[in-house]
Amino acid sequence: MDRFMQAAIDEAQQGLAEGGIPIGSVLVHNGTILGRGHNRRVQKGSAILHGEMDALEHAGRQPAQVYRESVLYTTLSPCPMCSGAIVLYGIPKVVIGENLTFMGEEEWLRSRGVNLEVLEDQHCIRMMTDFIAERPDLWNEDIGI
Amino acid sequence: MDRFMQAAIDEAQQGLAEGGIPIGSVLVHNGTILGRGHNRRVQKGSAILHGEMDALEHAGRQPAQVYRESVLYTTLSPCPMCSGAIVLYGIPKVVIGENLTFMGEEEWLRSRGVNLEVLEDQHCIRMMTDFIAERPDLWNEDIGI
Repeated sequence: MDRFMQAAIDEAQQGLAEGGIPIGSVLVHNGTILGRGHNRRVQKGSAILHGEMDALEHAGRQPAQVYRESVLYTTLSPCPMCSGAIVLYGIPKVVIGENLTFMGEEEWLRSRGVNLEVLEDQHCIRMMTDFIAERPDLWNEDIGI
Repeated sequence: MDRFMQAAIDEAQQGLAEGGIPIGSVLVHNGTILGRGHNRRVQKGSAILHGEMDALEHAGRQPAQVYRESVLYTTLSPCPMCSGAIVLYGIPKVVIGENLTFMGEEEWLRSRGVNLEVLEDQHCIRMMTDFIAERPDLWNEDIGI
């Protein structure tokens, strides 16, 4: 397992342990994690802190050039909001744990020149499959359904 | 002036008074403001709290049906991140103060069925024109340039 995807999975599991939705993300620049995060809908009553957004927020204010040299790792295919953040900052590459339990805006991201690598990682798939089965209400809320 | 756009402008001006970027937004449901916000990049060192995101965050966790009956008012054309949040939650209508100083993802939003009303309000245009002239560095950072 890539160590950055492992870090994203660790974040997701931390979120689950907190009673939250198990999705994690890390923003990596030149081999260094600038920010890590996980979905905090439950923990902070947040409508915007998806895993990717939380990682971007924890990375803090960065120069445009840094984003353009960075890779975002996320355990799940990025939703429209998180995809929009990727487009806004011109993040050129996203490594995605899986897109079987939820397909985000991958087509749009590719049309905007973002390089996507989808791992279909069994651990990521199992985390979300189990969570969706246990808390469909919470999952639907998180994706606006 | 529509009272909801006025509330968004008030938010933008509050942000400016705080030393921040003058963009404000309110989320309105059935004639009631659910959440109001303004850009907090400077104030909170935030990479994700654009005006629209701040308004959504302050509205808190809402049922999907509420977003689908809401209108988002924003003083400036929504960037990719904020447009993505609008798509995620299925907000059907966005009233935009102006899109002359910055054109966001209006084409994408329309392609996703979002009804956009662009006011080209002189107050909104002047706020951003003045701000961009005074702080081009900060403005560029906010839109990932």
